Amino acid sequence: MSTVWKSRYSLRAHEVKSSAIRELLKITERPGMISFAGGLPAPEVFPVDRFREACEKVLTEHGSSALQYSASEGYHPLREMIAQNMARYGILAKAENVLITSGSQQALDLIGKLLINSGDRILVEAPTYLGALQAFSVYGAQYFSVPVDEDGLRTDLLETTLRLGPKFMYVLPNFQNPAGVTLSEGRREQLILLADKYGIPIIEDDPYGQLRYEGEHISPLVVLDRKNLRRDNGFSIGNVIYLSTFSKTLAPGLRLGWMVAPVDVISKLVQLKQGADLHTSTFAQYVAYEVASDGFLDQHVRHIRRVYSERRKVMLKALEEYFPPEVTWTHPKGGLFLWISLPEGMDSQSLFRTALEENVAFVPGDSFYANVGSESNRHLRLNFSYSAPEQIREGIRRLSVAVKTQLEQLSLQHV
Amino acid sequence: MSTVWKSRYSLRAHEVKSSAIRELLKITERPGMISFAGGLPAPEVFPVDRFREACEKVLTEHGSSALQYSASEGYHPLREMIAQNMARYGILAKAENVLITSGSQQALDLIGKLLINSGDRILVEAPTYLGALQAFSVYGAQYFSVPVDEDGLRTDLLETTLRLGPKFMYVLPNFQNPAGVTLSEGRREQLILLADKYGIPIIEDDPYGQLRYEGEHISPLVVLDRKNLRRDNGFSIGNVIYLSTFSKTLAPGLRLGWMVAPVDVISKLVQLKQGADLHTSTFAQYVAYEVASDGFLDQHVRHIRRVYSERRKVMLKALEEYFPPEVTWTHPKGGLFLWISLPEGMDSQSLFRTALEENVAFVPGDSFYANVGSESNRHLRLNFSYSAPEQIREGIRRLSVAVKTQLEQLSLQHV
Repeated sequence: MSTVWKSRYSLRAHEVKSSAIRELLKITERPGMISFAGGLPAPEVFPVDRFREACEKVLTEHGSSALQYSASEGYHPLREMIAQNMARYGILAKAENVLITSGSQQALDLIGKLLINSGDRILVEAPTYLGALQAFSVYGAQYFSVPVDEDGLRTDLLETTLRLGPKFMYVLPNFQNPAGVTLSEGRREQLILLADKYGIPIIEDDPYGQLRYEGEHISPLVVLDRKNLRRDNGFSIGNVIYLSTFSKTLAPGLRLGWMVAPVDVISKLVQLKQGADLHTSTFAQYVAYEVASDGFLDQHVRHIRRVYSERRKVMLKALEEYFPPEVTWTHPKGGLFLWISLPEGMDSQSLFRTALEENVAFVPGDSFYANVGSESNRHLRLNFSYSAPEQIREGIRRLSVAVKTQLEQLSLQHV
Repeated sequence: MSTVWKSRYSLRAHEVKSSAIRELLKITERPGMISFAGGLPAPEVFPVDRFREACEKVLTEHGSSALQYSASEGYHPLREMIAQNMARYGILAKAENVLITSGSQQALDLIGKLLINSGDRILVEAPTYLGALQAFSVYGAQYFSVPVDEDGLRTDLLETTLRLGPKFMYVLPNFQNPAGVTLSEGRREQLILLADKYGIPIIEDDPYGQLRYEGEHISPLVVLDRKNLRRDNGFSIGNVIYLSTFSKTLAPGLRLGWMVAPVDVISKLVQLKQGADLHTSTFAQYVAYEVASDGFLDQHVRHIRRVYSERRKVMLKALEEYFPPEVTWTHPKGGLFLWISLPEGMDSQSLFRTALEENVAFVPGDSFYANVGSESNRHLRLNFSYSAPEQIREGIRRLSVAVKTQLEQLSLQHV
């Protein structure tokens, strides 16, 4: 027992818990297991050859700078490329508005460092991204939860909570992790107006925005915010910090994400990043830049969309075929996840144990709630990007067996 | 002005300052400038060809795993290799005791997260590594400073401060940044005994340990600690957390460092790392493993030692040749830096401005003091690893001109 250390842990270290998901992933690596638990991209889509060429080019042409220390802000050509790519979605950022982070997870940690004093209340969706809760809680965050439905955050329920003065709102408007739902255009407009009215800033987390498989693109909050501000002739630099990542479009193993913010906020974030890891891997940034350049990223994203769209279709079809009518699920228009709701009385944790016996895994939904309620144990998150179509079908069949077993036990209890 | 953001910054964000050094480095990039300011490895020593082969091999043989999400603890073969390498220095760690970090800077941030409550006092050397002060201060650290001399931390002055109950001690025993001094064997023994007596743990930061150019290797604190604990039959897992990095032996642009700690501390650090950046770049870890394998790292470190040892010699010789007798400097046996002391009345900040006019740069010493005192503005840090030998000679000549100019002004004031 390392008494000397434990007795010296900070309050935050005592409070932090391991991510339920990362612990879970270890169980689900058993041979024969079909896992819908992770949030992993399909490794088959990684553009390995393109990476090989990029490494060769970077090391031949820029060996000494790619292996050297570099600016905390990030590699300038990469920041410019990101700014240009985002411009197509209406995000009018310059390279100076872009900070490269060590994955989106670091962006969330930096947001926590930048904004949260112990005890501050953050408004989050219910359910919301677990990694954000982990990142914010370390800084002593408390939470207000507002539910989502198929159209995303219930903005009609927002105003009461905004009056209580949350420090900021954290939202995932596109194909939300875990629920797979998308914030409708009308609600986005409403959210921006309310944020402005109450002076509550928004952190917009958009890791999946480019992975849309049906329907029309909807403007990000950061775009609507700027339009609104221009109309009002209000403060000119925005109420929204926008986060995204290369993890779902290139490769998560690079750990490359970015934040978009007003220049003075970027400059404060850069100071915090200096203390956190000095800068993100120079080599990873150079390589990502080469891989993405000359239109390759767009072409590759189209390929990923085709692959994941097919897998989503297969999962939805299998659910309809195998699942009993008591169980419902969301119909995501993009992203990596869908969200299953169990009938009242059923419990996702006990379903999880039964499912493991059938060699299929998922993440029980309760981890995704900042404030646990009666609803939170009746959901499962399923990932459809990682497994091949035939595995998806078989996995859903196995899961349906587990669901039916649980349903029978439930009806026996009621007899 | 982004009023909405600034008014919502956390207390820690308001307090954090940009690293004086990183701001400085921008000035020193002027053409014609000879800079001893950065802590940069010489890019000529980067093993670029070996990196090229390693990338090729990693992508051919492990493409899908090297680009995928991976364990927060780090890539297991890399952790094992690090454990084996450290065993030669008597550090008896297993892979399970090793956490891979995104550079040593992240290790310092995780130490801050793990141990520091706002207001806690940390015992640091005067001067000490600026990046550690940045990392700790964000968590609200206050400091006790204990001076160093040519034999490192003045352990004879330690006991009074240990009685005041610092949360932990942060020490750089080998070729310290910034002073270049090394903690003697006798003082290491004394430090360990005192740490044990007062129950104050030690963070041992050792980025330069392998870069020794003269004299015999001295056992790290983490090794002496274990020996001492075994003798006393005390708690068996140690009072010292040890940090090191590949930044000075392979390439800083990878951002790869590591921490060695008891298993239960590692497991808590892993939870904190999950929230901070999920894990360090999988690809960088695979590539570093390939580059370092089959004895290449050892062979490469021998090469670096030869190059830097020569540069150190050139700098020391030029200092003797050009500098007036009023100025003194340390004689580092390794590492990247030496430390110059100016005579009383001279000021490193005004010398810095004069030096820039001569097209030579360094870091004024005051940034390296946690608690500013009368001593702190009379020092400069010079880096000898980055510039080529002929530049070092010319740079020291230019710097001597600036020093003499300042000395003359000083004696005029006294007339």
